[in-house]
Amino acid sequence: MKRKITLKQIARELDVSISTVSKALRNSEEISADTIEKVQAFAKLYNYKPNNIALSLKNRRTKKIGVIIPEIVHHFFSNVIKGIEKVANKHGYNVIVALSNESFDKEVLNMEMLANGSIDGFILSISKETLMLKDYHHFRETINQGMPIVMFDRVVNEINCDKVIVDDFDGAKNAVKIMIDGGSKHIGIITTKDYVSVGSLRTNGYLSALQLSGITASDELVLKVEDGLDTEENSDKLYKTIQSLFDNNPQMDGVFAVNELFALIAMKVAHERGIKIPEQMQVIGFTNGVLSKYATPSLTTVSQHAQQIGEQSAYLLIERLEKDEDLEEDGWKTVIVKTDVVERDSTK
Amino acid sequence: MKRKITLKQIARELDVSISTVSKALRNSEEISADTIEKVQAFAKLYNYKPNNIALSLKNRRTKKIGVIIPEIVHHFFSNVIKGIEKVANKHGYNVIVALSNESFDKEVLNMEMLANGSIDGFILSISKETLMLKDYHHFRETINQGMPIVMFDRVVNEINCDKVIVDDFDGAKNAVKIMIDGGSKHIGIITTKDYVSVGSLRTNGYLSALQLSGITASDELVLKVEDGLDTEENSDKLYKTIQSLFDNNPQMDGVFAVNELFALIAMKVAHERGIKIPEQMQVIGFTNGVLSKYATPSLTTVSQHAQQIGEQSAYLLIERLEKDEDLEEDGWKTVIVKTDVVERDSTK
Repeated sequence: MKRKITLKQIARELDVSISTVSKALRNSEEISADTIEKVQAFAKLYNYKPNNIALSLKNRRTKKIGVIIPEIVHHFFSNVIKGIEKVANKHGYNVIVALSNESFDKEVLNMEMLANGSIDGFILSISKETLMLKDYHHFRETINQGMPIVMFDRVVNEINCDKVIVDDFDGAKNAVKIMIDGGSKHIGIITTKDYVSVGSLRTNGYLSALQLSGITASDELVLKVEDGLDTEENSDKLYKTIQSLFDNNPQMDGVFAVNELFALIAMKVAHERGIKIPEQMQVIGFTNGVLSKYATPSLTTVSQHAQQIGEQSAYLLIERLEKDEDLEEDGWKTVIVKTDVVERDSTK
Repeated sequence: MKRKITLKQIARELDVSISTVSKALRNSEEISADTIEKVQAFAKLYNYKPNNIALSLKNRRTKKIGVIIPEIVHHFFSNVIKGIEKVANKHGYNVIVALSNESFDKEVLNMEMLANGSIDGFILSISKETLMLKDYHHFRETINQGMPIVMFDRVVNEINCDKVIVDDFDGAKNAVKIMIDGGSKHIGIITTKDYVSVGSLRTNGYLSALQLSGITASDELVLKVEDGLDTEENSDKLYKTIQSLFDNNPQMDGVFAVNELFALIAMKVAHERGIKIPEQMQVIGFTNGVLSKYATPSLTTVSQHAQQIGEQSAYLLIERLEKDEDLEEDGWKTVIVKTDVVERDSTK
């Protein structure tokens, strides 16, 4: 049997991007007629068949769910998987996990790899690079081929599918309000760049809480951490960045961090400068993990209920898979999992 | 096309365990002739073919690596995967992850699921239940079918394959020696039950360090944590167990913990009792993660170099896959990744 050629090999042979190949194969208007012709001719020559498996989906169930997450060294994502496993296993499904490593190309390739007959449907959270590029054709293509996707946490409006999200805006707003009620007047935020949807929603929640209490927001107090700094290898750089937030704002008496690592480092910096938590500075983090619980002082957090997000995502996908109707005929659901603030010793 | 029946379905239909089905299909002496006959007749009736895919392996490469880990909410395992991804991607391989959730049955089913044409070889760490049952037939069967396995961290002598381990014994011995040199005389250990190979090796390293320094070991100072208590949901129970180690040993002036969570909880208990770290009690953990680095005080750890373990495992597997020789003809390698003690503020 002839070996099947992959998207990646076509891209390499023709020296174009994976995205270009993928789009050219479906006659995208974004791609020049010349490139479309070249890619399709090449694909035909090597017998590339992107749709053959998905088309036969209706008659064939693998009882497997494919999960694509941006990162694995992350308490939130690993707990979501735990929740997916729990519900999937109960319903007789197995779970296969692949990582995008926050890369667009890897996300596209992993979807191609798994959609290729290995699984019945996807549960995924979008990579940062994909969100930055705003290129969602691979999701659209997968859904058009009849394979359902459930997106969680990092979702986009541009794609119609089932989604599970948390109330990022309200969660952040509630957390910041607790600090304001506790007497903080100069609250800093450590967040992500705006194209990360959840980071941006949390930043807006923070701003809204300030506004409601008549506090004028200050750009100096908003730290948008560069991409790639939020990994463990780069935690020394992250440390320095967070130190400069403290340097620039000696009056800062509260910190709201959009993840656990940011919050923990802020506490460490405060500790080293002799700033007492919560007396002189209150700290709240997003994502309630083991780090928060056993930190000294223990950290007040906005709990996202990661496992519940995973469970809900699996329920939605399995429901969709077992309905056996055309995907478009049924309305898409968005389930919002409410956050809770878990008050511990880092707030008053 | 007739739907393919699975091991699990056969087990359910005949009301026997998955392991029994698996063994009966290969005429194991452990299984009664009656059961073997029943299972094989049923398998034949439903056209069960366990070997058909693996047999054709030589002619077909998926360029995918299957990884089976016991748990995902665990810094060590997620970093191993990061290392596997790094090397696999460099060599054009994709990585698929599945979880055993420390269950024997799930480990067997996941191996069946992935070996079924989805991957070229396995990298895995054995589940606790498998280690307890000492039932390794699924590994043996997979290797006999021509699909290579690389085991890491939790490995067993009974299976001949490539392995990547750390020097658990020496790592623990060195860590405990540092505490003895720092003046600790009553050092407790928080470890796992003995059937978890790495836990047992670390316990022995601890005992050896005490002996070398002429310190008599005391059973009271050895806490072997029950299975299942080392998960986040059960961390309150774990907390109580560790509190009782403190209650039973008021003279304890050092704690060696075989993982990060155990160490962090020990520090929290010490903190609550007004025991100063490191002045009155030194603490060292195994596995160097972000928790250790940003704990207060920061935790001295035995770094396992998890990412390097993943990288080495991927190298061994890819080397084996690309050699294209019979698996038995070549000697198996065991790579030992040396641990380092990273000294921070929890030791003198």
